[in-house]
Amino acid sequence: MARVVVDVMLKPEILDPQGQAVQRALPRLGFDGIAIAEVRQGKRFELEVDGPVDEAALTRIQELADTFLANTVIEDFTVRVES
Amino acid sequence: MARVVVDVMLKPEILDPQGQAVQRALPRLGFDGIAIAEVRQGKRFELEVDGPVDEAALTRIQELADTFLANTVIEDFTVRVES
Repeated sequence: MARVVVDVMLKPEILDPQGQAVQRALPRLGFDGIAIAEVRQGKRFELEVDGPVDEAALTRIQELADTFLANTVIEDFTVRVES
Repeated sequence: MARVVVDVMLKPEILDPQGQAVQRALPRLGFDGIAIAEVRQGKRFELEVDGPVDEAALTRIQELADTFLANTVIEDFTVRVES
């Protein structure tokens, strides 16, 4: 069993209200001591794959991320084999 | 500027309806050729931190994740410095 991780984040130029809400809440929660310039929130998908993840499987997962897991108009994604 | 990533995933014993919905959709979308045994969906937070991320800052971000970014009753989280 191998784990492939697909991380989906909003493109840098796209406004991220969820991330901004987290950032604005930090002082109220007492976390103003850390110099956090920006917070962005996205999605993480963990795909447990039976057997080895060969080049062909990785290519198919890239296609899956491109067509289904991410909205590539506003989001970027990365695919990596984690274990 | 350093980037700290906080990944928040449902605990393994917690049902993940979103992940299951993705998994069930795979054959319909033509992705039944890859042997994906399970799909789980979670959240990824990217924190852009001014200056170096020393031990103290990392500890504070751990506390932030523990109290605010994750619901530790049903979620696990990991914190790592990405760049």
